[in-house]
Formats: sequence, C-alpha cells, structure tokens
Amino acid sequence: MKLANLQVEGQAVVALVNSDENTYWTIQSLVPDFSGDMVQLVHDFSNFKGDLKPKTAGSPLADVKVLAPIDQPRRNIFCVGKNYHEHAAEFQNSGFDSSAKNGEHAPEAPVLFTKPASTIIGPGDKIPRHTSVTSQLDYEAELGVVIGKAGRNISKANAMDYVFGYTVINDFTARDLQKLHRQWFLGKSLDGFCPMGPYLVTADEVDGQNIDVKCWVNGDLRQNSNTSKLIFDIPTLIETLSAGIELQPGDVIATGTPAGVGIGFTPPKFLQKGDVVRIEIENVGVLENEVGE
Amino acid sequence: MKLANLQVEGQAVVALVNSDENTYWTIQSLVPDFSGDMVQLVHDFSNFKGDLKPKTAGSPLADVKVLAPIDQPRRNIFCVGKNYHEHAAEFQNSGFDSSAKNGEHAPEAPVLFTKPASTIIGPGDKIPRHTSVTSQLDYEAELGVVIGKAGRNISKANAMDYVFGYTVINDFTARDLQKLHRQWFLGKSLDGFCPMGPYLVTADEVDGQNIDVKCWVNGDLRQNSNTSKLIFDIPTLIETLSAGIELQPGDVIATGTPAGVGIGFTPPKFLQKGDVVRIEIENVGVLENEVGE
Repeated sequence: MKLANLQVEGQAVVALVNSDENTYWTIQSLVPDFSGDMVQLVHDFSNFKGDLKPKTAGSPLADVKVLAPIDQPRRNIFCVGKNYHEHAAEFQNSGFDSSAKNGEHAPEAPVLFTKPASTIIGPGDKIPRHTSVTSQLDYEAELGVVIGKAGRNISKANAMDYVFGYTVINDFTARDLQKLHRQWFLGKSLDGFCPMGPYLVTADEVDGQNIDVKCWVNGDLRQNSNTSKLIFDIPTLIETLSAGIELQPGDVIATGTPAGVGIGFTPPKFLQKGDVVRIEIENVGVLENEVGE
Repeated sequence: MKLANLQVEGQAVVALVNSDENTYWTIQSLVPDFSGDMVQLVHDFSNFKGDLKPKTAGSPLADVKVLAPIDQPRRNIFCVGKNYHEHAAEFQNSGFDSSAKNGEHAPEAPVLFTKPASTIIGPGDKIPRHTSVTSQLDYEAELGVVIGKAGRNISKANAMDYVFGYTVINDFTARDLQKLHRQWFLGKSLDGFCPMGPYLVTADEVDGQNIDVKCWVNGDLRQNSNTSKLIFDIPTLIETLSAGIELQPGDVIATGTPAGVGIGFTPPKFLQKGDVVRIEIENVGVLENEVGE
C-alpha cells in the first residue's frame, strides 16, 4: 500500500495512492471517521486497514501537490551517520568528519543524530541554500524507516514487526557547518534540509533490507548501493534506539547514506543553485529536488 | 512571573505561581478562554499577559504535583556542549569526548545536539538508570532558555527580545554511550534523561546572562559557576541557531554545563541508585531528582 500526504484544495490530507494509475483516494473518503495526519494514520492503521479498499475510481494525482509523507513528526527525525562502509571511508578521508577516530573507518556502534521537523520539504520543493551561513551543500540519499507501533527493548529478532513502512529521504547537509560545529546537528538541520517522499510505502510491499538506493545529480549517477550493505542494519538500529528510547508510531529513522556524496570527490563536488538531486529507492519511490535560492 | 505546569486532579494544567507563598492560580481561572499547554501559553502570552493578575487567594502548591514546565516541546530540545571553559577542559581531558580535536579546549563554534521530549521528567521524579545499556551516569546543571516568539536571522543585539524566560535543566548523560556512539545524541537521550523545572520564570525577573548555577550531589557542592562565564552567551546561541533554523515559541535551549561533572574527577564519580542531584539557579529555581531504578 502506498500512502501520501497531499495538498488538496489548500488542505493537507492523507491518501491512499495507486502509483501505476497516478490516482488517489483520501483516507477520509474510505474511513469517514478519520481526520488525522500521517502520524495519526500510522498510529490508527491497524484499526481500519481492511477498510482501505476503494470501490470507486481514484482522483488524478496530477491535480494535487504531493507533500512530504510525514511533515509533522512529533519529534526530530532519528538519523544515522557513516552506516555504509565505503561512505564511512570517504567521509573519514574527506577531512569533514570532526568525530572520527584516527584510522577508523567503520564506527563501533551506530552514530546517531537528529533533524527537526522544520527541515522537511516535499518532492519537487526547492532546497534553500542558506548562503549566509554555508557554501558547501551536499546530498545524502537514504532509506527512511517509519515506525508503526510503540516499543522499548525491541530485539533484533522482533524489530521488523515494528516497521510500518518506508520512504525516501535526502539527508541534506552543510558540510562546513557539520565540521565547524563538531556535533553534526546544526549542519544537518537548516530549514528545508530534509526532502522526503513522495510516498510512505507499507512494509509488506518492500524488503527494506535488500533494496537499491541510487542518487543522480543533474543526471550523473553519484550513489548506487543497496540497503543490504548497511553496517548497522534496520533491526540493529531499532534494537539500539529502543534500548533507551521508547519508539513511537510515526517515528522516522533515516538509515544513512552510501558512498558517492559530494565530499567523496577530490576536489569535493558541492551543490550549486539549479542543481537537481534525484534519489530512487527500489519499490519505494523517486524523490527529486532542485537546489533553489 | 513564575509559570508552572501542574498535575491537578489528574490533569496537566498551566498555572501562575507565587513561590513565596507556595500558591498557584490556574491560567484558565484567570483567562477563561485559555485551555492550552505551556507551549501554547508562551505562544499566546502577549495577548493576555495583563490578565494574569489574581484577585483571589491562590491554591496551595503542596496539594498538587509540579511537572516539568515544558513537557511536550514541539521538537527536541536544543542543547549546547562544552560551553564553559573549565568544563570544556575537564571534558576534553576525561577521554569521553569523541569529537575533541587534539589540544583544543574551547570549541570554535557552539557544539549543538538535541534531546527528545521523551527525556523530560519533572522535579522530584526519579531518573531511570537504564542499567541494561549504561553504567556511567552523570549530571549536568544547565540554564534552560525558552524562546518566546518566532524568528530567523536574529542578531545578537536583538536576541534577548526573543527570550520568554528561563528554567532549570539537568542534561543527564550516559557517558559510556556518549563516547561509544560518537555523536552525543543517544547518550543524552535515554527516556527520563532531562529533569526540568520547577518553574518557567519570565525574562523580566531574571538576568539570564549573569546568574549563579550550582549543583550538589548528596549535599556535596560539585558545580558552582555563573552564566556570565558561558563561552557562547545566550545572544550568540540564538543568533547561531536562528541563522539557519527559524526559532519558534516554546523552543528550549539548554545552554551548557559548567565544570564539576562526574567525569571531571579522577577517577570519575558516576551516579548510583539513590544519589540525589540538586541544581539551583539563582532566581530561577531549585531542581532536585533522585537516581532511581
């Protein structure tokens, strides 16, 4: 099932999408009692999952704007750094990693930080450049995992039961700020620095542990890997986080980016105004954003 | 003015407090139209500030539980690390700082990370030990700054106009996790790791830039400094954050801790079950919590 957050007649509404036919049905048209946002939908999903069976033709997606599927998470997005071996190495070697140990490539444990909701923008939205504070913009293609139910002390063996679904995330980064401020939060958290979408695809449709992650800049293939190459896989991330933090429905985990980011090149290839970043994650979707003003 | 979040007859309600007489008036008793939480109160404050003048005797605070003043922030708390010179040095020398540059004591720019709302507990609440993941618990006494109005690109000169008020924060930390996970988020973010309160004191009553910050463990004075010694002062923190992130009413900034934390001692003095951490910030309040199960 593909779920979307749409702007319909000026209002954000959640919807069921048929991406082959490019049509949608608002959840409220299928479940009249429901009026919440995507986090609420994830929370309540098991109550009315069976009712999400349209009996009429859908409305054309072309007539509405697709927003980020979860644009109002209840807390910051959980993010993972250095979670593919080749990217860990390229980041280490770039000189931009202020928390690297000498000679270390892969971290001993997941490297975790956050991005606030104010970073989230939708497919097609322009990414603000924030030229007053940064000149080193970089992309990071990542699989986003959305948690479906509350849990603490979740074991790896049970972790996938807590995954509601997946989306595409661009963990956009100001490399100069990431380096200058030592902890990565600020360089990752400027307004508009988390393009997300287009859809939230339920876990029954995707093997999140074995899907291709690709990223192009202006048509040039820069990142090309597979989530099977994650250093800390999805069950490990869920086990690690939930050992101390009770996970909640609608929590989002950005699982880390593979090799091929701008600072992986010598000299680094930073993004400029007008550059287009296109991320495709197999069976999850295509997220494209242009670097704006 | 002192504001509090109280549990009255099982409900969380915001209130005006007279801390000399230990009495309170619910905001709704003074402004009948208001039914929001503290973040909403901060947001709407200028609309009815003049109405917050009780004409009757208050109710006794002793009859209710004082909760953390902002226990449902709309996004993670912004936190600052290594923001007093002597603490930056003790942390650097402790070996627990995975993002330190060799030989560096004071950072070049504010070191920023976050704690989610799920860390927040109130005065008197026991701090969970999370013994399955950590054995190195530490306290950090900090002045919490609460933002009063939305703003971006706020200059240092105007920054204090954006401060609504202050509270007391214990930026509780699992030092082993802080070190192991490189980025500090996880070690700072276990459930219950942010004791806060008791009150939110409006900025007109406190000179946040020149107040004493003290912390005792079991009656032993461990931290004793003044916010005038912050490396990056409150206006600088607001300018730095708002240059890329639009600040919002109810945002909380934990400004960093002075020297004297547990890892500042040789050997480190980690907290144990039953230890009592008492933080006093001049004219802001006293926050006391025991380390629990």
